[in-house]
Amino acid sequence: MTVSPISTSALHEDRLLPSAPEERAIARELYGVTKDLPLVSMHGHVDAAMLAANQPFGDPASLLVIPDHYLVRMLVSQGVPHDALGVPRRDGGTVETDPREIWRAFATRWKLFRGTPTRIWMEHVLESVLGVSSALSADTSDEVYDAIADRLTQPAYRPLALLDSLRIEILATTDAAGDPLASHADLASRGYGERIVPTFRPDAVVNLDRPDWLASVQAMGQQAGIDIVDYSSYIQAIESRRAAFVAAGARATDHGHLYADTEPLDAAEADRLLQAALRGETTSASARRFAGHMLTEMARMSCEDGLVMQLHPGVLRDYDPRVFAERGADVGYDIPIPIDYAQSLRPLLTRYGHDPRLTLVLFTVDEDVFGRELAPLAGVFPAVRLGAPWWFLDTPDAMRRFRDTVTDTAGFYNTSGFVDDTRAYLSIPARHDVSRRVDAGHLARLVAEHRLSLDEAIETAVDLAYEIPRAVYPRLDH
Amino acid sequence: MTVSPISTSALHEDRLLPSAPEERAIARELYGVTKDLPLVSMHGHVDAAMLAANQPFGDPASLLVIPDHYLVRMLVSQGVPHDALGVPRRDGGTVETDPREIWRAFATRWKLFRGTPTRIWMEHVLESVLGVSSALSADTSDEVYDAIADRLTQPAYRPLALLDSLRIEILATTDAAGDPLASHADLASRGYGERIVPTFRPDAVVNLDRPDWLASVQAMGQQAGIDIVDYSSYIQAIESRRAAFVAAGARATDHGHLYADTEPLDAAEADRLLQAALRGETTSASARRFAGHMLTEMARMSCEDGLVMQLHPGVLRDYDPRVFAERGADVGYDIPIPIDYAQSLRPLLTRYGHDPRLTLVLFTVDEDVFGRELAPLAGVFPAVRLGAPWWFLDTPDAMRRFRDTVTDTAGFYNTSGFVDDTRAYLSIPARHDVSRRVDAGHLARLVAEHRLSLDEAIETAVDLAYEIPRAVYPRLDH
Amino acid sequence: MTVSPISTSALHEDRLLPSAPEERAIARELYGVTKDLPLVSMHGHVDAAMLAANQPFGDPASLLVIPDHYLVRMLVSQGVPHDALGVPRRDGGTVETDPREIWRAFATRWKLFRGTPTRIWMEHVLESVLGVSSALSADTSDEVYDAIADRLTQPAYRPLALLDSLRIEILATTDAAGDPLASHADLASRGYGERIVPTFRPDAVVNLDRPDWLASVQAMGQQAGIDIVDYSSYIQAIESRRAAFVAAGARATDHGHLYADTEPLDAAEADRLLQAALRGETTSASARRFAGHMLTEMARMSCEDGLVMQLHPGVLRDYDPRVFAERGADVGYDIPIPIDYAQSLRPLLTRYGHDPRLTLVLFTVDEDVFGRELAPLAGVFPAVRLGAPWWFLDTPDAMRRFRDTVTDTAGFYNTSGFVDDTRAYLSIPARHDVSRRVDAGHLARLVAEHRLSLDEAIETAVDLAYEIPRAVYPRLDH
Repeated sequence: MTVSPISTSALHEDRLLPSAPEERAIARELYGVTKDLPLVSMHGHVDAAMLAANQPFGDPASLLVIPDHYLVRMLVSQGVPHDALGVPRRDGGTVETDPREIWRAFATRWKLFRGTPTRIWMEHVLESVLGVSSALSADTSDEVYDAIADRLTQPAYRPLALLDSLRIEILATTDAAGDPLASHADLASRGYGERIVPTFRPDAVVNLDRPDWLASVQAMGQQAGIDIVDYSSYIQAIESRRAAFVAAGARATDHGHLYADTEPLDAAEADRLLQAALRGETTSASARRFAGHMLTEMARMSCEDGLVMQLHPGVLRDYDPRVFAERGADVGYDIPIPIDYAQSLRPLLTRYGHDPRLTLVLFTVDEDVFGRELAPLAGVFPAVRLGAPWWFLDTPDAMRRFRDTVTDTAGFYNTSGFVDDTRAYLSIPARHDVSRRVDAGHLARLVAEHRLSLDEAIETAVDLAYEIPRAVYPRLDH
Repeated sequence: MTVSPISTSALHEDRLLPSAPEERAIARELYGVTKDLPLVSMHGHVDAAMLAANQPFGDPASLLVIPDHYLVRMLVSQGVPHDALGVPRRDGGTVETDPREIWRAFATRWKLFRGTPTRIWMEHVLESVLGVSSALSADTSDEVYDAIADRLTQPAYRPLALLDSLRIEILATTDAAGDPLASHADLASRGYGERIVPTFRPDAVVNLDRPDWLASVQAMGQQAGIDIVDYSSYIQAIESRRAAFVAAGARATDHGHLYADTEPLDAAEADRLLQAALRGETTSASARRFAGHMLTEMARMSCEDGLVMQLHPGVLRDYDPRVFAERGADVGYDIPIPIDYAQSLRPLLTRYGHDPRLTLVLFTVDEDVFGRELAPLAGVFPAVRLGAPWWFLDTPDAMRRFRDTVTDTAGFYNTSGFVDDTRAYLSIPARHDVSRRVDAGHLARLVAEHRLSLDEAIETAVDLAYEIPRAVYPRLDH
Repeated sequence: MTVSPISTSALHEDRLLPSAPEERAIARELYGVTKDLPLVSMHGHVDAAMLAANQPFGDPASLLVIPDHYLVRMLVSQGVPHDALGVPRRDGGTVETDPREIWRAFATRWKLFRGTPTRIWMEHVLESVLGVSSALSADTSDEVYDAIADRLTQPAYRPLALLDSLRIEILATTDAAGDPLASHADLASRGYGERIVPTFRPDAVVNLDRPDWLASVQAMGQQAGIDIVDYSSYIQAIESRRAAFVAAGARATDHGHLYADTEPLDAAEADRLLQAALRGETTSASARRFAGHMLTEMARMSCEDGLVMQLHPGVLRDYDPRVFAERGADVGYDIPIPIDYAQSLRPLLTRYGHDPRLTLVLFTVDEDVFGRELAPLAGVFPAVRLGAPWWFLDTPDAMRRFRDTVTDTAGFYNTSGFVDDTRAYLSIPARHDVSRRVDAGHLARLVAEHRLSLDEAIETAVDLAYEIPRAVYPRLDH
């Protein structure tokens, strides 16, 4: 059973490679050796329950428009209301429900996506994954809609079948500390235990001022079978859950803090803040201190259980409180802010930065930090790896700037390899493909400038696309 | 009546286009469709009174050297005193008055401008506008001076004649809140009312700690016919003046704050600060709070009267107090400082960022902010548009980085189109020409990398050069 | 007596030049006129005592691996312990002492340096300086080691012989305020007085909270023959030492502060802080204030004695306190932090920024500052010159971005020319060569884009490589 043949109407075989013939020829050769390598997707947000259910996807709008906040935010920015895009309201109020209309609202504004990664990913998904090659426009909207809808009814487009056709070797999901991991157990029972693995995401239990903190702590305690009444039981519950994640195949944790603070507290102070939070008494200052403390605690735990630690700070989530109240999180209102990395991470790094058991992958959405702070840290601390350009930086031009900026100081081998970080399942190959093309272009430039031999570039291309991510996120004994 | 023929001795027809043949060929085609489009100059600092007077320009130095702070600052940085450049002293002290000598001080140091935009603009002005093609040097200084001086006596070089020959479709000036708009009324009576429009610039009346604040408030009150005694009458006067600007054809306001603060005050607090300032009692802290409050107030007013709101924060003006005391403002001592945008603008944006009546064009002189904060904001809030690279960033390389950096997240259609922001009237075509060439090069790269079709690139080039600025700054009913 | 012939196995003659044929041809021509110009090395950290002793260098590891913190930090970042690299412990504990083993630890990990400047410099040193052309690997490690070791026994590889063969016209060392300058006196007595000059580095005596502050002040007092008991005698001692440095041929001072603060204190306050420090009573806040004050004092002294003032702020030294305790300073744990330049430098610049006697060369390791703050300051204040990209930015790609970013606003002639800033003596030609190649490429682009004529580019290339650094750091009468 194969995915429909690829049309090349929009997807030129040389897309995203350097345009100058000297570099393009080299880049083609490099891309040629990486393009068919399996996908190692160690950081993403595909829903484990969806995979376990393995049901046909719904309509094109529910699959490709409504949940894609890159796409929704661009349409909103040009005056299309969330309602017209079918983005659900928390109060259950009426929004557009006709998927064909929602698709039209998108397809007729295809022009807005010129120059954006959404354009690149969507063309790849439509053509390479769905076999639909018509360009999007008001005229073709219905035709494309129908073609996609037709594909989605076919068995080849069920989630687990796609795992093969998309060439995904391993897929990490992201799961709350209190998640029972039932979908993963289900998948494991069907032989997917090594291929679809959970990631431990404790944000909701370490940020004392989140509205869902108490409920999250309670859920975690329940799953751990521990009554969380103080800092000691709280830590026990976290360690217990981490062990359960490891047992379920997890290889990493993920931490989405606002700041990169890592100053540890003494146990008494941590207990005081935790117990106050349990009583519903916390302040944003104490929440910030506790969150910083917990990052260093998590590094300690990673040294003990081997989970790779991933940190994604510097994003102000839910920037518009009215939109958040109306639609909830993750509808496009993440805004990066400048934060300090070097001084904030110092407490953690001076404790665990040389510990051979720790791998700490650092991400940022602030390009300024790559060269100034992250590459120098990754270039000296054995524990640190530089994460791939993420969120707003997961684009061809930002990826190029990333390599141009960090390689001098961190080299290639202190980076973590590509992570797609997506909830858009069908776009995973598109995202890895962009990364492989950009890296091929970067390496081709080094070869064309006589800074690297072709043989070295070929080996490096394979390392970046495949070997490094496998090595950075190793399988743990469990 | 035509402008003198263009010499091409310095102005190569392919200047600023990519050098690689593959991209250059595409860029030529794209530039070909935009190069002769009319100029939409919606943000500049040409003097309305000069246009209304329509007198011949004075000598070459008074026209092209003394008032150009890009040019003056470079010469000063290499040790040429302001006096030698004829920059007037506030105390009326002696400065060089022979324009030929001033011109020589510039022409003999032409080498200093290699690689700078001043070089590009000046060559364009000399050759395309003034028909003078000799390269500048000590040897040619007098010859070029005489050639320019000769042109300036011709009727074709009077300000209003140039409006046609420079192909300026619409020109916005910048005018203080208390400006009687007499020059605009005069111009309107001669049929230029739709073509030369004022812009409402209230900085002097919203920054309580400016030395000219009280005088500016009084001038505004007088023009509005309102006795400003408290916050309520102050707001009334502002609204009255905005209405007068709208009636005079204004399409926009312009705000040059140091910070992007927008936290509103309650009316009682605003009144308290305002009345204290009227009594001569203000502090820099209260001035900062009041200025922030007024930005959100201005957004409210823009929702009501339709004026596009332009914000230019982050520049420390008059950095050297001795130079300011000696020469006054705008002699080259603006220095950018890093400021926060995302958190500072949050109060304004969460109130008005989704209001379909508001357009807020955000500018910066800090490139770091483009990708990190401004593109994410413009890429989700319908009210926000990203202003063109400005002041120190109004250069070919900064423009390239701007498109490379913001397009991923904001696309092309959340940018505002080019604004020349110049007081150097003759250089307006040069500045738009640079922008059109750079955008042609950027789009050519996307085409050469198979990210955009040629047809799409052609349409986008025209949109950026002409359609978008017309749409972002629409004519208001008045 | 000549250095061994250059092999070209790794060093392609076009390396680092633009790959596109149009630009490469121009770049070749430009590089052709600069490549053999003498080296003006006005800022470096080669040891004067080593030069004066003029003994053969030791083994390859002691020369090329152990003291090179670029190289050591990369190996450490990939898990090689400092001990294995022979980096000495402060407690005298055991580290690897077999230089062949240390060289192997490096050579077998050559892959890690792909894309880094260490690779470029090392290949240049091996091939052009040492005449060793085998590529590094586990297989060739011993062979290369032996070839280097053999060269080092030859008279042509003694320090002073290399001064000629490396084509170094002038070499500045860096010397503490209390240094007796004995090595320089020795070198001067042998005719090297104009060629090897000291640089006055007073960091240890102006930072009150350094552990070595008191000892450094005492050493300075002793050299100056002044009993330092208060601020007045402290200043006298500094001025006396500066005079001694000038007499020894010094042309510049160097200041490595954490911040760029320059707010002056009144004499009484300065005396109070100084005397408290002499009693062992200082705080980090008072140390910061005093350090800022002293920068402005140093600018005053530079106006009086003519020493060029060089400022390198923004680096958090000895980031990891355990590593510092174990190994001391300069083992790779410098981490850049964002600091303010514009506002911090304002007190100094408004006092001395227009003084024709001052040259202040500003460096940064934060690329964001180049365009936002440093180029605008250098582009208006006659005293300010922009230093070359430094430390982590001393790389081909960062140099390119530097020119792309600062030239618009500062031009070429407000930059200081290249400084190699290295303690790796043999790599000095490699570093200047990279700079000349990158500048050739930058200028070639401007020519190819018709922004500069070829003649202008040739003159500019020579100015950047040779004339500007000679002019910025002039010989003082002494």
